[in-house]
Amino acid sequence: MAAIAEELAKGQKEISVAEFFERNRQILGFDSPTKALITSVKEAVDNALDACEEANILPDIAVSVSPTEHDGEYTLVIEDNGPGVVKKQMPNIFARLLYGSRFHAIRQSRGQQGIGISAVVLYGQITTGHHAFVTSKIGHGKPAVRMELAIDTKTNQPKTFSTELDHWEKPHGTRIEVVLKARYQGGKQSVFEYLRSTSIVNPHAKITFTDPTGQAFVFDRASDEVPPKTEAIKPHPLGTELGTILKMAKHSEYRKMTTFLQKEFSSVGADTAKKLLAEAKVENVAPGDLTRDEARRLHAAFGKVKIMAPPTDCLAPIGETLVRRGLKKETEDVSPEYIATVTRPPSVWGGHPFQVEVGVVYGGTLPRDGQVRILRFANRVPLLYQQGGCEGTLGVQAVDWRRYGLEQRGGKGTPVGPAIILVHVASTKVPFTSEAKEAIAPMEEIHKEIKLALQDAARGLGRHLKKKAKRAKVSEKFDLVTKILPEINKKASTMLRKPEVDLAPIVCKIMDVVWIDDVSAEYAKLEGATLAPKAAPLPVPTSAAGGLTLEAFDGDPVEAPAEVPGVPAEPVKPKQAYLGKGTLTITNYKQKAQGFKLYAVLPDNAVFVEAEPAPRKVAERYLLWDVPKMEPAAKAEIRFDVAGVGKGDLDGLDLYVEGINEINVVGADPWHGGEE
Amino acid sequence: MAAIAEELAKGQKEISVAEFFERNRQILGFDSPTKALITSVKEAVDNALDACEEANILPDIAVSVSPTEHDGEYTLVIEDNGPGVVKKQMPNIFARLLYGSRFHAIRQSRGQQGIGISAVVLYGQITTGHHAFVTSKIGHGKPAVRMELAIDTKTNQPKTFSTELDHWEKPHGTRIEVVLKARYQGGKQSVFEYLRSTSIVNPHAKITFTDPTGQAFVFDRASDEVPPKTEAIKPHPLGTELGTILKMAKHSEYRKMTTFLQKEFSSVGADTAKKLLAEAKVENVAPGDLTRDEARRLHAAFGKVKIMAPPTDCLAPIGETLVRRGLKKETEDVSPEYIATVTRPPSVWGGHPFQVEVGVVYGGTLPRDGQVRILRFANRVPLLYQQGGCEGTLGVQAVDWRRYGLEQRGGKGTPVGPAIILVHVASTKVPFTSEAKEAIAPMEEIHKEIKLALQDAARGLGRHLKKKAKRAKVSEKFDLVTKILPEINKKASTMLRKPEVDLAPIVCKIMDVVWIDDVSAEYAKLEGATLAPKAAPLPVPTSAAGGLTLEAFDGDPVEAPAEVPGVPAEPVKPKQAYLGKGTLTITNYKQKAQGFKLYAVLPDNAVFVEAEPAPRKVAERYLLWDVPKMEPAAKAEIRFDVAGVGKGDLDGLDLYVEGINEINVVGADPWHGGEE
Repeated sequence: MAAIAEELAKGQKEISVAEFFERNRQILGFDSPTKALITSVKEAVDNALDACEEANILPDIAVSVSPTEHDGEYTLVIEDNGPGVVKKQMPNIFARLLYGSRFHAIRQSRGQQGIGISAVVLYGQITTGHHAFVTSKIGHGKPAVRMELAIDTKTNQPKTFSTELDHWEKPHGTRIEVVLKARYQGGKQSVFEYLRSTSIVNPHAKITFTDPTGQAFVFDRASDEVPPKTEAIKPHPLGTELGTILKMAKHSEYRKMTTFLQKEFSSVGADTAKKLLAEAKVENVAPGDLTRDEARRLHAAFGKVKIMAPPTDCLAPIGETLVRRGLKKETEDVSPEYIATVTRPPSVWGGHPFQVEVGVVYGGTLPRDGQVRILRFANRVPLLYQQGGCEGTLGVQAVDWRRYGLEQRGGKGTPVGPAIILVHVASTKVPFTSEAKEAIAPMEEIHKEIKLALQDAARGLGRHLKKKAKRAKVSEKFDLVTKILPEINKKASTMLRKPEVDLAPIVCKIMDVVWIDDVSAEYAKLEGATLAPKAAPLPVPTSAAGGLTLEAFDGDPVEAPAEVPGVPAEPVKPKQAYLGKGTLTITNYKQKAQGFKLYAVLPDNAVFVEAEPAPRKVAERYLLWDVPKMEPAAKAEIRFDVAGVGKGDLDGLDLYVEGINEINVVGADPWHGGEE
Repeated sequence: MAAIAEELAKGQKEISVAEFFERNRQILGFDSPTKALITSVKEAVDNALDACEEANILPDIAVSVSPTEHDGEYTLVIEDNGPGVVKKQMPNIFARLLYGSRFHAIRQSRGQQGIGISAVVLYGQITTGHHAFVTSKIGHGKPAVRMELAIDTKTNQPKTFSTELDHWEKPHGTRIEVVLKARYQGGKQSVFEYLRSTSIVNPHAKITFTDPTGQAFVFDRASDEVPPKTEAIKPHPLGTELGTILKMAKHSEYRKMTTFLQKEFSSVGADTAKKLLAEAKVENVAPGDLTRDEARRLHAAFGKVKIMAPPTDCLAPIGETLVRRGLKKETEDVSPEYIATVTRPPSVWGGHPFQVEVGVVYGGTLPRDGQVRILRFANRVPLLYQQGGCEGTLGVQAVDWRRYGLEQRGGKGTPVGPAIILVHVASTKVPFTSEAKEAIAPMEEIHKEIKLALQDAARGLGRHLKKKAKRAKVSEKFDLVTKILPEINKKASTMLRKPEVDLAPIVCKIMDVVWIDDVSAEYAKLEGATLAPKAAPLPVPTSAAGGLTLEAFDGDPVEAPAEVPGVPAEPVKPKQAYLGKGTLTITNYKQKAQGFKLYAVLPDNAVFVEAEPAPRKVAERYLLWDVPKMEPAAKAEIRFDVAGVGKGDLDGLDLYVEGINEINVVGADPWHGGEE
């Protein structure tokens, strides 16, 4: 038997990481020629956007895919105006796997692994035998450097075949040229769509795309502001593993535990450090001497002592306005009837800050019979593949959409209906399921946040659909009375040469309801004003109105008690306030005169300004009108202004009535709230 | 700007692969404490099974999970009776990522990456600070070696903390002990279920599992035969990339292209090599001097010249019998009404031989309202996670199951109904989507094979359900005539004290059909006999009967012309033949006497033996009986024996009738085949 073990030992050897991926390129997203092309574009564009953000440059990126003389081979060229790469590092950055600058820094960036762009070079070299050509210029007065590069897969070391100095009219930037086996196609999973989606969530970038036929498309920038550079942070104690604490302590340059904790972790001040060490009973230990049992006590203390949430300036969410704008742009051709967006407050998974943003679009000409379309983004990068295994999808599938008016078998799985659902996860560390960064792994904390955000966005949709259904119930009658009856009346009067009959009594006999309509509201920006954030939005899910966004704002940040589960809150930036102008119409289609009380429930923190007619009562939560007796077929209109609302807060306003049988009302529910 | 590039360069550095996975452990399947435990068990058991197969040992594996004194920490011990690991290699095998013996060998094995078991050690050390203890003994007379091991994540090098010689009563084997953060739970994604599924597809293994409460479960072996060791092969020309050809040529030890092609590729003989070189016009080149253009021509020639399919002894499919047995075992508590299994002939993706096996179970007490359950396996390893992103699932979703009687919205997506669908992919290289080996990446060739196999298995199900539906249509009547009418008759006769009425005319008036039933068939093994494989099963999908299995068989292999797409066939092992004994019953529930012709279509290559009554005609494809005029309410029975069928081939036999109106027949379709 020993002979067998010896025999087996002969085959046991090291595998170079380049060799590993040469044989497992599907893990990097190079499964098929179609996907390989999109993945290559994605990796290069991710790098360009990250580099420009780091250098505070408005990105100007040119992507070109052109056929070579050989079937199934394309030349891919991607050029940016970023800060460039210094000559010495060019071979490592472009022709060595697991080499990069963003892996060791904890902040939100598109690339993190130091694999992507070298994988493109590797793929090109495996499939076509061509080396990559990289040109980089790091500033005015410096020459551009052009290198021919490939990877030695047996060692994962870069091989440089030529280095030339070159003139380049650009002041700075990087250009990479790779020849690769590829298939170019259109549709939802295409280079074009990838760049379009990228442009939607990166409105500060200009992207020019030249397709294989030579046709050029420009995705122009919609904003001239570079997103603020995200700050790198230290690891947060929560989520740091026992073994990692031991390793950090052993390698620490600090001699005292208090300094170690304050300097090597985020959100730990002198006070917290003292409390942690007291709780763990490891006050008089040098970090280098920390034993496993001491580390275990410290690890336990991390879960018991209150520690500030991690700072959130390491995150750059898209923002509610941009999500909404992006969805509107994405759906302008289908004229949706309802759009809701929710940005959740930042939270933490495994010590990594993250933030979830979602959007729901409903109606219009979206297909009614298919599964809803799910758009997934991670750190502002669109995810096109591996939808089934992605937390973005699993989060959608975990919501019982039947409660909100969509069709869904058993209350699980992807719902069916005319809707698009967008999910964006921004984090210093997105837990991708593989190096291809195509899907987010199912982490409990992220799952929960996505679910809460979606439920929040869905509630508004549910209310909207409920009202719509109620209206639909009487719409047949309504069609009759408003369109067909008048036609008959007119025709009859012409034929009989008699005056038209008064239809009102007939209409009211058929309808027998009071019809209340909230016609769509308008919003005016209140310069300099912000919304007061809601108190303690957790654990009860916040409404879209109460959710927090991190949009840029000129005023002072407001200290807000938005709690991240288990950790005290950080100051959050406030939300732009609007003046909302709402209009209601009331028509009495009953057979007799009818008066009633009408309540309009205000969005949280909204402040009443004025109304015509004036309400009888202005309470904190609602406005109350006494609607006087209206004769059959009479119409009335109410206009009101409220300040301090978010954009969209008055859409689908909650209306209630009192003093009238609910079966005789369309557009409002019976009031059970009492009068305050 | 140059300053920025210089500043960025400071952060650019190498990332050790251990560091990478320390930070991205979800990629290795360690997302959550629950999953981490299952993944750890899986990696160790995979290794044990692979090692035993390599050494031709019947595996005896003990798995134990026990709680430690600390909450959320468990000690995992896995012990096997494999060939052991030599002392020198123990640190590399167990505490170094990307080190192993199976990466460079092209044959079917569970482990391929040289990552799994070291990842378990890494996970334990990160989450609990504990090192792993590994004991190994390589044979009688050798001492066992026990080592304390950990990984230096900064360098991905093993660290050995102690090495002891130890006595171990076992003749040989390996034992690994890891303390790790974990959660133990039951259900479908549990250690217990994982081992149960593993045992089903590895019936030669004995697995003992001790759970955290100390309860022991034994999954005993159901077979005493070690599966034949799969042979390592050279890469197949089809699917070898241009860059890889260049690299192989450059590093080749051979001086002549003909030798290079024959020695470094599989399935290339002298003749084929000559044809390839002639087609590529690279006859007079030394491999080391091959240019890119020459390599390109050779690459193109690989696609034009006929090359043998890769040998299939590198594959070890589960086999149709075992798949069926596994499914029966899995579903014995639900008493399904229908089981079909299909093993496809071997095929090739990207130069890698692979083979697809599927099974479909229908009915019984399986839930009727939920999505079907999908069981996925790759190289005899159950896949529990990432179902949504796995080709096993995508293949199921690509079939239009509505055609075969299952509910499925729009003919896409996971079907709904009381069914379990099993998909197994065996390959020298399973294209997993990540290092966690949880899902198979969607490769075109594999997708196609899974779809063909499922359609094939589904056809039988469709026929079964169609017949069932037709029976159901008249079952109400049938209930009436066979149960209620006789009761009424009896009661009436008692009450009226008159003899019972002759019900036959009444029954026939109500039913007005001839009822044909194929009661379930029996099978007797024909010792020493095998089935002749079907000629050219492609491109038309083969029937379950015609599919090929690679079950062990004592006789000589039969040369079979089973074609792999694009490549000529290899000899395949034949399938066990059975004697099938079928019984049909015919009842005339019509009002008048009826005679007709009855055709029973035989499975492919089946040979008629005898029947009672004798058929009027025995054709190659069918048996034909003249059923003489049967009086109303008369019953008849037909028994027949056919040899050379597969087990199950007579279930749901295709029956046809002629000379009777089809609306008067239940259990057979009208014959349109003519009489041969």
